[in-house]
Amino acid sequence: MGQRLQRFEALVAAFEALPTIGKKGAQRLAFHLLINDPMAALRLAHAIEEALAEVGRCRMCGGLSEDELCPICSDPNRDPSLLCLVQEPQEILLIEESGEYDGYYFLLERPVPEVVQPLRQRIKELGVQEIIFALTPSIANEGIMLHLEEQLRDLGVRMSQIAHGVPTGVALERLDRLTIAKAIRRRQEREEG
Amino acid sequence: MGQRLQRFEALVAAFEALPTIGKKGAQRLAFHLLINDPMAALRLAHAIEEALAEVGRCRMCGGLSEDELCPICSDPNRDPSLLCLVQEPQEILLIEESGEYDGYYFLLERPVPEVVQPLRQRIKELGVQEIIFALTPSIANEGIMLHLEEQLRDLGVRMSQIAHGVPTGVALERLDRLTIAKAIRRRQEREEG
Repeated sequence: MGQRLQRFEALVAAFEALPTIGKKGAQRLAFHLLINDPMAALRLAHAIEEALAEVGRCRMCGGLSEDELCPICSDPNRDPSLLCLVQEPQEILLIEESGEYDGYYFLLERPVPEVVQPLRQRIKELGVQEIIFALTPSIANEGIMLHLEEQLRDLGVRMSQIAHGVPTGVALERLDRLTIAKAIRRRQEREEG
Repeated sequence: MGQRLQRFEALVAAFEALPTIGKKGAQRLAFHLLINDPMAALRLAHAIEEALAEVGRCRMCGGLSEDELCPICSDPNRDPSLLCLVQEPQEILLIEESGEYDGYYFLLERPVPEVVQPLRQRIKELGVQEIIFALTPSIANEGIMLHLEEQLRDLGVRMSQIAHGVPTGVALERLDRLTIAKAIRRRQEREEG
């Protein structure tokens, strides 16, 4: 369409720069917003700007927050004996959505040596009795867990990790050998239905 | 994550309101923009606002334009003997990308009776010799084409329609009966490679 639809092309490019959106999808979104739903376009632009201005990190856990403390760290009704270690802010949302956890979180975003002191402090503050490593299984993360276990041993807290194995609804043929090996090694007795 | 991440949730909702983006995808986009790429977020917000402010419709063909005339209608090097009728602005882009067409366009967005006069005028202005109906095959569109043929017959222009048939790379089992019937009825002698 020539060089003169510059703003339209800039909009397509801005969508295309997002993960999981290809050129076709970006064009479709741009047309949709401009032709069918300019109100949705305006809402999206404003939502982005507001979120950029207002969403930061929780001083305590490092998760997303719009205040100094996130909704979880400032909730006195959670279980202070549990602390779940994650590596990405979005993992907090995923675990929350599972509905299986009501303790607090701690984000391991910085290199492990920098994390040890604030983590020890948080454990003491809360009176944590169990640390749950919610890390993706990998050699590197195994190293991180071993190092932290070492560094936290004197605190006498229990340490656990989320179960590794075969995910629901995924065919075995789509999984790597290591996952299958672990799933067999750690097989569990079937519970009575 | 509680009720207090309002801006984050508003951003997820704004993405989720777009076609082809589900809840998971919207969350992923929101996290990506806020955590990994705030610059891309800012660019997207600005691109949306600029496009909303600057992208309008071409006075001549009805396609997207950032000036009174779109890049195509203001290009004197296109073939004025060809006029392609489409129903959505995005179809102009799709046909342009095919690289197979270098005439002008006319958008049939309004009800057919309202379109006849401006269309006749455009045909005379350009000296059009062939009108190409680039409409999706359907009963309703067949009606539109019949009506326009009737209304334009006295102008003595040739009228054609884009070929209907089996799209490249789509298995027959995924196509409807009518498409297959047409593809057989309009089968073509194979050309020598």
